[in-house]
Amino acid sequence: MPKLDYDNQNNWLFKTGQMQSPVALESNKAEKIEKQATLKLNYSTNASYVHDNGQGIEIGLSGKAIIDNRFFSLQQFHIHAPSEHLLNNYRFDGEIHFVHQAKDGRTAVIAVFLKAGKTSKTFSQIFNHLNQDQNFVCDLTDLIPENKSYYHYLGSLTTPPLTENVEWYILANPVEISRQQLAEFHKLYPYNNRQLQSLNGRPVLYCSSTIKN
Amino acid sequence: MPKLDYDNQNNWLFKTGQMQSPVALESNKAEKIEKQATLKLNYSTNASYVHDNGQGIEIGLSGKAIIDNRFFSLQQFHIHAPSEHLLNNYRFDGEIHFVHQAKDGRTAVIAVFLKAGKTSKTFSQIFNHLNQDQNFVCDLTDLIPENKSYYHYLGSLTTPPLTENVEWYILANPVEISRQQLAEFHKLYPYNNRQLQSLNGRPVLYCSSTIKN
Repeated sequence: MPKLDYDNQNNWLFKTGQMQSPVALESNKAEKIEKQATLKLNYSTNASYVHDNGQGIEIGLSGKAIIDNRFFSLQQFHIHAPSEHLLNNYRFDGEIHFVHQAKDGRTAVIAVFLKAGKTSKTFSQIFNHLNQDQNFVCDLTDLIPENKSYYHYLGSLTTPPLTENVEWYILANPVEISRQQLAEFHKLYPYNNRQLQSLNGRPVLYCSSTIKN
Repeated sequence: MPKLDYDNQNNWLFKTGQMQSPVALESNKAEKIEKQATLKLNYSTNASYVHDNGQGIEIGLSGKAIIDNRFFSLQQFHIHAPSEHLLNNYRFDGEIHFVHQAKDGRTAVIAVFLKAGKTSKTFSQIFNHLNQDQNFVCDLTDLIPENKSYYHYLGSLTTPPLTENVEWYILANPVEISRQQLAEFHKLYPYNNRQLQSLNGRPVLYCSSTIKN
């Protein structure tokens, strides 16, 4: 084989940008993983701020998560509408991203789809504290489904700097907020979803859960 | 805050190339992790080929590994000389890379430093089968240290396509091959180490092990 030119390393080609998010998920193409879904979330019930950060609505919340047997710290969560990921060609009404970081710098995002339906008390609390730096009770029980079956793939942040090296865990089961709550969000953002990116052959895994945690 | 322009997403800036390998590791700057090192290796003792692949010497070997509580499959291992990573400003005589992949496509590389010393039987076996596609016994006990304390950080492949999203686990304890064996390698490659890359603020963790496995 031709030798790699170690004397001219600056000419080596760096291939990147092939692992971007969001993507279209298809349940019949996802590989079923036998092990049980292992998302153990232990989030605070007190949020510290709600900011319109120019990309969406971001809520300050701390907490711990065990994701695929490793410890992560919750950094914040934020809201996109409509959804960024597609599931079986369906675009949900919104998508919450819970952003976590591990000690080595790895980012893991747990995503929850939103669909129009009953009013979310937590969502109302969030909008009552918009652009305030003030603690408030933020009980996520109505914004995280009990069944945490998820789709998993490797991707990127969906806003600049679009950094790759992000582990995505997209819960299969949506939660509900009301049409009025959606309309409140859309007054701030007519839409804040990044366009779909190609999977470029990346595997998508599906991990089903019977655990409520 | 100024709104991100969702109507002109193609103008968004994608920041990449900040997480390249190899890097200089410094033990006094690494964050000590309290948990025990969890590298459990269950490799085959039969290799299937030895190829001069134009970047180094690559050996076909399969196997399983549990790395930080997750399953990986060994893809192959290959040899660089001198070492690519530095430890406390010291460049070792060589570095073996055991390349693993998880089902989601994630790559994890376990690196073992080589230093000149006693003859490695396994290394001799490898060179006896150079550029052959033939099974042979490849018992790695003299090429993997018993103590698997490691440095860990997130980086990239060290040859094109230099893909990021690689988990590095660099064993702190070297193994030995003879000066004659090093000389044999250098007949093929005077050197095949990529130049050092900047850490750019990435954390380096150190995980000590008392387990022999």
